[in-house]
Parts: sequence; structure tokens; C-alpha cells
Amino acid sequence: MSNDALVAKLRDGLGKDAVLTDPDVTASYARDMMPLAPGGSPLAVVLPSDAEGVQAVVRACAEAKVPIVPRGAGSGLSGAANAIDGCVVLVLTKLDQVVEIDAGNRLAVVQPGVVNLDFRNAVEKHGLFYPPDPSSYDWCTIGGNLSTNAGGLCCVKYGVTTDSVLGLEVVLADGSLLKTGRRTVKGVAGYDLAKLFVGSEGTLGVITQATVALKPLPQAPATLVAGFTTTEAAGEAVARVVSEGLVPSLLEIMDAASIKASEAYLKTDIGAGSDCKALLLAQSDSGAEVARRELAALEQICTDCGSDMTYVTEDLAEGNMLLQARRVVLTALEHYGIWLTDDVCVPRTRIAELIAGCERISEEVGLRIAVVGHAGDGNMHPTIVYQPDSPEEFERAKTAFDAILEVGLSLGGTVTGEHGVGKIKREWLAKEIGPVGLRVHRQIKRALDPENLFNPGSMFSL
Amino acid sequence: MSNDALVAKLRDGLGKDAVLTDPDVTASYARDMMPLAPGGSPLAVVLPSDAEGVQAVVRACAEAKVPIVPRGAGSGLSGAANAIDGCVVLVLTKLDQVVEIDAGNRLAVVQPGVVNLDFRNAVEKHGLFYPPDPSSYDWCTIGGNLSTNAGGLCCVKYGVTTDSVLGLEVVLADGSLLKTGRRTVKGVAGYDLAKLFVGSEGTLGVITQATVALKPLPQAPATLVAGFTTTEAAGEAVARVVSEGLVPSLLEIMDAASIKASEAYLKTDIGAGSDCKALLLAQSDSGAEVARRELAALEQICTDCGSDMTYVTEDLAEGNMLLQARRVVLTALEHYGIWLTDDVCVPRTRIAELIAGCERISEEVGLRIAVVGHAGDGNMHPTIVYQPDSPEEFERAKTAFDAILEVGLSLGGTVTGEHGVGKIKREWLAKEIGPVGLRVHRQIKRALDPENLFNPGSMFSL
Repeated sequence: MSNDALVAKLRDGLGKDAVLTDPDVTASYARDMMPLAPGGSPLAVVLPSDAEGVQAVVRACAEAKVPIVPRGAGSGLSGAANAIDGCVVLVLTKLDQVVEIDAGNRLAVVQPGVVNLDFRNAVEKHGLFYPPDPSSYDWCTIGGNLSTNAGGLCCVKYGVTTDSVLGLEVVLADGSLLKTGRRTVKGVAGYDLAKLFVGSEGTLGVITQATVALKPLPQAPATLVAGFTTTEAAGEAVARVVSEGLVPSLLEIMDAASIKASEAYLKTDIGAGSDCKALLLAQSDSGAEVARRELAALEQICTDCGSDMTYVTEDLAEGNMLLQARRVVLTALEHYGIWLTDDVCVPRTRIAELIAGCERISEEVGLRIAVVGHAGDGNMHPTIVYQPDSPEEFERAKTAFDAILEVGLSLGGTVTGEHGVGKIKREWLAKEIGPVGLRVHRQIKRALDPENLFNPGSMFSL
Repeated sequence: MSNDALVAKLRDGLGKDAVLTDPDVTASYARDMMPLAPGGSPLAVVLPSDAEGVQAVVRACAEAKVPIVPRGAGSGLSGAANAIDGCVVLVLTKLDQVVEIDAGNRLAVVQPGVVNLDFRNAVEKHGLFYPPDPSSYDWCTIGGNLSTNAGGLCCVKYGVTTDSVLGLEVVLADGSLLKTGRRTVKGVAGYDLAKLFVGSEGTLGVITQATVALKPLPQAPATLVAGFTTTEAAGEAVARVVSEGLVPSLLEIMDAASIKASEAYLKTDIGAGSDCKALLLAQSDSGAEVARRELAALEQICTDCGSDMTYVTEDLAEGNMLLQARRVVLTALEHYGIWLTDDVCVPRTRIAELIAGCERISEEVGLRIAVVGHAGDGNMHPTIVYQPDSPEEFERAKTAFDAILEVGLSLGGTVTGEHGVGKIKREWLAKEIGPVGLRVHRQIKRALDPENLFNPGSMFSL
């Protein structure tokens, strides 16, 4: 089938308005938020509004042997959703229905185009809680969250996306619709295919619906902030939190560069003091006296580890204000240039070593690197700042990006805690999982997508 | 390669004592605990003591084209570990080391032959908790737990086996060793292969090591027991526990037949009263006043739903004694004959309907059916009792077994909540997952095990 014939077929199937080919328009669907990742020019961008539409697209592309790159809102940070030349970009944002909320069984059925925050709000009305909360939660979509197995600030207590998934509907490479998983909280009938598709970054199929388990809505969180004069002391406090069996609902870390950027941006003094080298932010959503006790235990650990500034509040608004300092870091860094954020996850005992490594790399490449992260999981986001008009700085930023991954691996960590492999970490995936792991990946990819239709070249190449 | 040559090669590789061929001896490794499942006579039973030994077995069997049935202690209830004629039974019980306990990162590395209880005790010494606790926890092994994605009484609060798994080492069909997953609490580098192997019942590879996440050791539980004069009232109480957002650390149900058997066996009156038709047992391990508050809320729900007998104790020994009534049900039923236990999981709002269905089936087939189950998950174990010397009763028991699965599916449930498909529910798996689901299973099986070496005919046939 020619490209023109394919476009005509797609228009026939989906309607004219659901198929975009104007390069000026399609360009806006051709990239996610990761500047490092390669991207191409799509043949067309399609926006089906239901699973049947997705099936029609997959069948037409399979017939035409044109690759498909599925995408949601494009908030990703790995280039997984970046177009490749001549592909069809399959946008899932019009599958945007919360199909069902079953409060009696604490589950919901949701389409991939629903924005994470909208979904959270919808279930909250039923007293329920959908934990995964990536930083982009106010604009990223559930489908992207599923495809990248997204995390967020909740994970230290509530796990990642896959931990909430009970079942999926997935359009396979031949256009058939797989319904896998269940509506019950337990079930072992067959392989856990749902958890195979979660995190597969659109390389095995297109998710058109998910059944997810929900939690009871937690209490409004109480908040602790603690300042440290060394990152080692902050890292030691995190390790003690873990080893003493505390499970806060949030445990974030900011290094000196992050604190400085955040304070400048917010035009406020976080109260960290000029010799503050690291800040820990913790919350407990256990409610009333339990939260008070948990935060008191956390505060004691921080003090024992040498924190010279701790502050606890049960006021929700004040807690949000304190968290704001953490949330604005990436935006604040834009004052200094373009940022390139990394994503490594290390054993929780080794956070301070990772930050030390980033400081060393920052000096070596001569670029600002701010480290923020989900300390409670060991999932850190060292963020490199470079000048947009300097290709030479961009090269140094890339060098730093890779050097940070090397440090992460050397500490027993992984090259991606939550952002994914996409089109920027293919070589690093191969390095982390080794030749046997890569071979199994290829075997599964070939088994489910023999024509290499779905997001070819993302994660790994066949 | 001839069978004799294979046995000689296995003896060369593993040592003479690790290869058993005497039919009287091998017969004791040829079955698990499910009487319904077909079983065959193995060519040999091998007991390697390390991953290299497992690799040698797999390579030799691959060369000889002799199928392998992996097994642990044989506590399974699906026939997954049952031998097939002419196979090599690969026993993993000699890979019995707790390789590492990393309290600082709350994880452990464990070999498949370690008994669940031994592992629990080992990590408890470090103040840590490994949740999965199938009923056979004092003799089943971690490898079997992984291969069936085992659950237990803990699941209502702590999830199933897969929720604890961070990484695996698996011997593949060509004898190579796959190391997949990670030591960090988060990680999205590649497909989640670990969760694909978990629950795959030995059909995709042989697990030789697991890295598992551990929880802080919970507080000693406080216990509630509540009696109901109808199963509907007990079912309604369970549904209210879920919808009101309570998360007990245990929530079990016993029907009238279970209560009667248990009381007769223990020669004691549980205090349920003669008109008691269902008992709920609940625990909270949240400690002190929080547990007290949780159990008070649970007790209130039970009373609201018409319970005429509730009893709460914070005494651990007394709580264990009350739980004993639940734990002995299967043993107690042996007084009446042989039991055949089923395993369906339904949405938690529909437990009473499942029990009503079992009562109807019991009348229809004229056999005692006792229902016990993990009410908090909707995972029920209706247990059919028949006379060992009556082939006719065995036939009726099988009829009841299938009828219960039919009811489970009709209520939106699954045909197996935690025991697995094995060799008894192959047709039911096909019915539950449908032709597209089955096709994907076969594609994955063929991709990873093209010669159908591992446990062929278990779960599904190629």
C-alpha cells in the first residue's frame, strides 16, 4: 500500500479530522520532553476515539508496513513517544473516558487518554485514591503512565503504576483486542501479561483500557522539613529511615544546587540557611496522632544524623508550600538555561554517594547539576543545566548525563527508575540487562510484534 | 540421546546421589497435593544443589529432548508439579540458601529451595517481614511460591508474591542463565520479565534465585471474631469493610460447614452458637491504639450488618487460638473423607453469592462442601469432601469442582486466585482468557521455550 493509500484508508476509517498530515501540525506531536532523544517526521498523526479506531489504525499500518508510535500527552522524558521518519503517530488522548468507578470493590476502569489528575479527582469523589503521581500529573495521561510504569512522589509508600494494575485491554500487532487480567484483587490464571505490557513503552501493543485497583483515600498529610550541612548526613538519615522500618508517604531530597535555584525562583528563604547542603522533605498521611508519631520519629532520625534545622507542620497549606520548593526545582533551573534531567535509582543506602558523584561530574564538565529525588526509593533526578545556544555545552551535558548513569550502575542501581529507556538509553539498557536479557527482550518482541510495527527502535533494536 | 545416555550424563554432571531412577523412589516426587490432576512416571528425578547444576540438567534434557518438570516441596494444589511420563523431575529443594539479607535496603536474596517459614524466620531476626504466607508456609518452598505467585492470609494488606519480587535468576531453555530485575525499589529498564516468570508455573524457565523486597516487621496483631446467622450478612460486612476503606491485616471467612468441622476437630465450641452460619476473623497489625481503633470500626460494621456475636482480643496467644479454628479446617474435613479444595476469586461484593452457589451445588451433588477463604480478597476455597473408596463420589466431586468454577466466573471472578492452573484447570484457563489470550500465551511460550521443554501441557498445551 502506498503512503497516500494508507492516509486515505485511515481517513476512511477514522474520519477526516482524526488524521493530520500538515507537517506544521504533525510536528507538534513528534516529540516528548527529552531534548537528547532523536526524533523524526511522521507520515501522519491519527487521533482515534475508541478501541475500534485503534484497531483500524493498527490493521491499516500493518498492511502498509508503516510503523506506529503510540503516544499520550507527550510528557515523557525518554523520547519513547518521539516520532520516527515516516511513521504514524497514534495519539490516544481522545480515548478519555473514566469508564467505571466501582467503589464497592475499590477499582476503576479507565481509558488511556484520561489525564492523571482528572482521574485522581474522579476517584477522590468516591473516597478513593489512585497513587501514581508523576511530576507531570496535571497533564500526563494514564496511557503514558501505564506504558512507562510511571512513579512519582507516592511510591515510597504506595508503589508504582504496575502495582495498581489489575487488567488491560491491548490492541495487538494484528489488530486483535487482547483482554487480559481481571477485576479481582488476586488472580493467577495464566501469565501476568498485564504487567508485561505495563512499562513496555508501546513496543508490544497499544493499551486502550485499564482496570486499576484503588486505595482508601489517605488523611491530609503532615509535613517535616530538615536541613543538613552535608549530603552525607542527609543520605545517612534516609538510610536510617529505611532500616528503622519507617514508611513515610513522601520522602524527597534536594541538594544545595536545587535549594539555591528554588529559593531564587520563589524569592523566599526556605529557612535552610546558607550552609545547608541538603534538605529532606517528608510527609505522613496516617492521620492525627499516628502521623505525629511518625514525623516525630523521622525528626529524631534527622537530628541524630546531624540536622541543624527541622520544622514540622500539620497545616496542609503550609505543607504544600514547603513541598512547592521541591516541585518548582526544574522550572527554577530554567532561569540558568535548558535542563536535561536524568533518572537513576540506587539502593537507598547509597544516595549520598550518588550525590557526591554528581558533584564530581559537575566540576568535571563545568556545568551546574542539581540533584532532586525520591529519596525514600533511591530514585534520583540529577538535572544538568546548559545554555540553549551552545552546542558545545550540550555536548558536555550529554557527557554528564552518561557519566551519571555510570555512577548509578556502579552503585548497584538501575539506569532508569521511572522515566524509561525510550530512545535515549538503548545502549544503557543493553549494558544493564546484558546479552541474555536483551535476547529475551527480542524474543518476546518478535513473538508479539513479528513485523516490528510498534515503536521500532525504542528501548532496543531488533 | 537415549534415556540411558541422558541418565548417565546427569549422573556425570550432578553426582550419582543427585539422580534418582528407582521407580519406588521417584514416585514420591511425582505428584503434588491435588488428587484431581493427572500425573505420570518420571524417567528420573534430579536434585542439583546450585544454578550450574540446574543449567547442566536443562542442557542435557534439551539435547535429549526430554521434558523437565520443575518442583519444590510439592505442596501445590493444581498438579503443576506433577510428573509427566518419561520426564525429568527437577527438584529445587537443595538450592536452600538465604544468600543475603540487606536490612539497610530492606531486601533479601534467596534460593528457591528455602522453606517459606525458614525464610520468614531468617528475615524476622533482622526486624523484617516477608508477607506471602500460603497455608503450607511451614513446608512449601519459595521457588514454588514464586512459580505459582502464591498468596495466603497476608494478601488483604500486603499483596501476593509478585508484589515482593524485585529480581530473579532464571535458567532458560537453552541452559543460559538470565539475571533480570534489580536491587532497587523502583526500576523500569526493560520489560518486567521477573513478573512474567512469577506465576508461570515452571513453563518458561527454572528460577534459581530471587531478590525480594521486605517490609518492616508489623506489630503483634489484635484479633476480632464475629458470628453471623446468615452468609449474606457476613458477605455484606466484608463489602462494607472494603467500601469504607478499612485495610485489616487479615480478613477470613468460614461458612457453617467449616465451623462445624473445625469445632468437631478441635473438640471445642468456638462460641459461634448453633445458629451461626458464618464467621469472620479479622486482625489488625497496626499496633496499640490504631489496631484498637481499626478493630472497633470492623466490629461496628459486623454489628451493623447483624452479627449477634463479636469478640475482640489483643492477646496474641488467644488470637492465634481463634485463628487456629480457620487454619485447621482442611485437616478437620479429613474426618469426613478426602477433600478436594477449589480456588476461586470473586469481586469482594459477591462473596455471599459464591457461598450460596456452593450450598446449592452441595445439595445438587449430595456432597459436603465447606467454604473457607480470604474474604478480604474475595479469594475463596470451597472444599468438597468425598469418600476415598467411592469412584462414583469422586466423579460427583469433580462435577462440583467444575460447577464452583462456573459460578466464580459468572460472578466476574477468576478460576484461580492463588493455586494456579497446573494440570487441572487448563480448559478453564482457556475459557477465562479466551482465544486471543491463549494465543499470546502460546506465542510467549514458543518464544522462550521453542522445544516445549519446560512443564509441557501444564497451564495450556501448545
